[in-house]
Amino acid sequence: MNKKLSVLILALAFFTSFAYAQKQPKYIFFLIGDGMGLSQVNSAELFLAAQKKQHAIVPLVFSKFPHATFATSYSLSHGVTDSGAGGTALAVGYKTKNGVIAMDSAGVKPYKSIAYLAKEKGMKVGITTSVSIDHATPASFYANQPDRDMYYEIGLDIIKSNFDFFGGSGFLKPTTNAKKEEVASLIPQLEKAGYQFFHGINEYKQAKNKQAKTILMNNKGADAVSLNYAIDQKPGDLTLTQITEAAIESLKDSKNGFFLMVEGGKIDWACHSNDGATTVHEVLDFNSAVNKAYEFYEKHPEETLIIVTADHETGGLAVGNGSSTLRLNNLANQKISQGALSGIINDFRTKNPSASWDQVKELLSLHTGLWKAIKVAEKEEKEIFAAYEKSFVNHQNETEKSLYATNDKIASLAVHAVNKVSSLSWASGGHSAAYIPVFAIGVGADQFNHKMDNVDIPRTVAKIAGWNIP
Amino acid sequence: MNKKLSVLILALAFFTSFAYAQKQPKYIFFLIGDGMGLSQVNSAELFLAAQKKQHAIVPLVFSKFPHATFATSYSLSHGVTDSGAGGTALAVGYKTKNGVIAMDSAGVKPYKSIAYLAKEKGMKVGITTSVSIDHATPASFYANQPDRDMYYEIGLDIIKSNFDFFGGSGFLKPTTNAKKEEVASLIPQLEKAGYQFFHGINEYKQAKNKQAKTILMNNKGADAVSLNYAIDQKPGDLTLTQITEAAIESLKDSKNGFFLMVEGGKIDWACHSNDGATTVHEVLDFNSAVNKAYEFYEKHPEETLIIVTADHETGGLAVGNGSSTLRLNNLANQKISQGALSGIINDFRTKNPSASWDQVKELLSLHTGLWKAIKVAEKEEKEIFAAYEKSFVNHQNETEKSLYATNDKIASLAVHAVNKVSSLSWASGGHSAAYIPVFAIGVGADQFNHKMDNVDIPRTVAKIAGWNIP
Repeated sequence: MNKKLSVLILALAFFTSFAYAQKQPKYIFFLIGDGMGLSQVNSAELFLAAQKKQHAIVPLVFSKFPHATFATSYSLSHGVTDSGAGGTALAVGYKTKNGVIAMDSAGVKPYKSIAYLAKEKGMKVGITTSVSIDHATPASFYANQPDRDMYYEIGLDIIKSNFDFFGGSGFLKPTTNAKKEEVASLIPQLEKAGYQFFHGINEYKQAKNKQAKTILMNNKGADAVSLNYAIDQKPGDLTLTQITEAAIESLKDSKNGFFLMVEGGKIDWACHSNDGATTVHEVLDFNSAVNKAYEFYEKHPEETLIIVTADHETGGLAVGNGSSTLRLNNLANQKISQGALSGIINDFRTKNPSASWDQVKELLSLHTGLWKAIKVAEKEEKEIFAAYEKSFVNHQNETEKSLYATNDKIASLAVHAVNKVSSLSWASGGHSAAYIPVFAIGVGADQFNHKMDNVDIPRTVAKIAGWNIP
Repeated sequence: MNKKLSVLILALAFFTSFAYAQKQPKYIFFLIGDGMGLSQVNSAELFLAAQKKQHAIVPLVFSKFPHATFATSYSLSHGVTDSGAGGTALAVGYKTKNGVIAMDSAGVKPYKSIAYLAKEKGMKVGITTSVSIDHATPASFYANQPDRDMYYEIGLDIIKSNFDFFGGSGFLKPTTNAKKEEVASLIPQLEKAGYQFFHGINEYKQAKNKQAKTILMNNKGADAVSLNYAIDQKPGDLTLTQITEAAIESLKDSKNGFFLMVEGGKIDWACHSNDGATTVHEVLDFNSAVNKAYEFYEKHPEETLIIVTADHETGGLAVGNGSSTLRLNNLANQKISQGALSGIINDFRTKNPSASWDQVKELLSLHTGLWKAIKVAEKEEKEIFAAYEKSFVNHQNETEKSLYATNDKIASLAVHAVNKVSSLSWASGGHSAAYIPVFAIGVGADQFNHKMDNVDIPRTVAKIAGWNIP
């Protein structure tokens, strides 16, 4: 080879690698399904196929992404993480003790999240969720607090973040601090810091300046704790997809691009209740929010990176409980969440304290398909009848407590029966140590190619974006 | 840019892409953990860490591979595959009905496996397993039969394959055909076809011509059904790692390279029995076999491709059953498999038909750590005691049937108690629809980068190797 050619090749190689290394995403979506293990994704894919009477799968928007892998999720203190340490790992790239929000295990040293790194580079930042804005996962991206239950203090950290868009159901403790003292309300302080508030999507749509710092919350009078479960939603209810759309609308004209975190927060809640149908609908709802990010990607494929992952798996969900035939189609008979069913049973009992077994069966049939679309096995019928007897005959109410709900025992047993005939099985009402899925598309997505640890996920995002995690 | 430079760049780009597209592996390892879902891998990693008193993970050889993803495993007939349809999908790149070996669902049209494609290209081929050579997974690579239970006919298909190395415990029905007729023994026919037989690794080591067509089976007098579980193995027992080493030894000097399939077949069996400790040891044993492939890769990194995957998950294993604290260290107290414990209890009962509860507890303690290293909860003690009473007091034996074993009820309950305190939970004794893991290293490994379907795994191998799946 002559010398001139060698020099040319070297130069070409140098510029090629340089150009490659320099390619950084302008728009970054970081979407987290809380509690969404691989089995939660799998069950949603299988449910979609079952609806079409196939035993194959119908992929979700994100399960078709060209890059997919999985990651470990243990925290610094426990084999099984909570959403505090899990969210922290994903937000800041450091493991911490369960319960802590973006600080070291001692709750002394704050960690800077990748959302802050984005902000420092001039990007706009959005933090959104289907639960309250001060909940562990979103909090990990903007707050630094030693305890995830310090909701008021977490909320106040919005001011120091100066982030551009927040969306979720609302705030859990807007006037009560960690010492349980009544203190100056959060909302006026956030307004003073320049945030405009909107209640519901219609208010947001009428905003004069969508580019101003925004906090989008649930409809006036609706729950501040969380959006309604997808399975329970009525027309007019605020949805995660609407929040995601609004966030994109507010952030999209940013000169230096944006970083948007979206949490499907109630997948976890449904799993804590071991409520299969509600879980599947939450995953599909999250998928619909991911689709908004994907639509944006399609318009800006050379400038966008989308990551879809989870903080941990909840419930130890297994798809397949003995038979080779899956019956996830049975889940479609359940029309409301276990929580909503509990409420309906409570109301019904108030009006009919000594209702007959047939009346209660009728009520359950209506909402879950049991005895009508679904054959109930003797064992399950016996259990539900025993709970009925205790409640409607002996007038002793029983409740089944999960992390985010206290459900009527009859409702819980009915949902359990639906799970069982739908080939779903749960190991517990807590989180598990299962690997978490990671899906990626866009600029740098090919780096999500090996089994990772949860902290590697934001670290890889930072590397792709050219940021330094301190 | 001047014209000369443009031409040079174009030429360079052309040759680079050409060289890249042409790069094909000379040595292909295809290793299958039967029943090894993501949770089985996860539990082995967590167990290794627990042994070191860490709650983190210690990665396996293959979980450190630079490429990892996961795949769906449903068959053409069922949402949950069996090892016939599962092995077929991995071997031939087509889905079929549960129970079929490398044929269409009607059992009419045979499919050609990638092992045959390798052989056609002049590669040597090895098919190895820790169970019998005629079992569903290995069979899928060399046989074509409408039913996985046609062991004799499957064994005969070795002759038409003309593959170079077979290794496993032996043959299940060497003299009985599918019609249950006594027929001409398989072994002399295979010998006539040119296969040399070795019983155990020492016989193999003394072989004069290791490059001749070889069938390596279990030690003389040892079980033809399967190798002993890793947890039960004694010095001198044939191991999957030894079989893998022998296969590499026989194949490695092939001018055109080789294709070697290795199955860790008893991960599945341990999971069918819901035996956590035995499962973890089987995964680690499989990992040790993978390590032999990895050592070969290290010597030939530019010419080798290793794929590690599974045909399906078995048992619906969950790691984490409620508490955030994992206690997989407790598994180390179980010193033998549930099957071996059954045998010991049976022998003990024969000699001591009316043994005291304390004697039985002592026996269980010795082999599982229960009551000594492991505190037994009231519920579990009550269950084990009830089984003891039935058996040793009322003299009614109880057995617990799983797919590959019929275990003593006391043994089964004891292992269940060990699982429970070790944070493991099982959904059933059958297979599940869980995604299967895919790990890859070497030439073309970067193509295992997205969520796949099981049939895409051999199809991608074929694409990388430049073969056409018919």
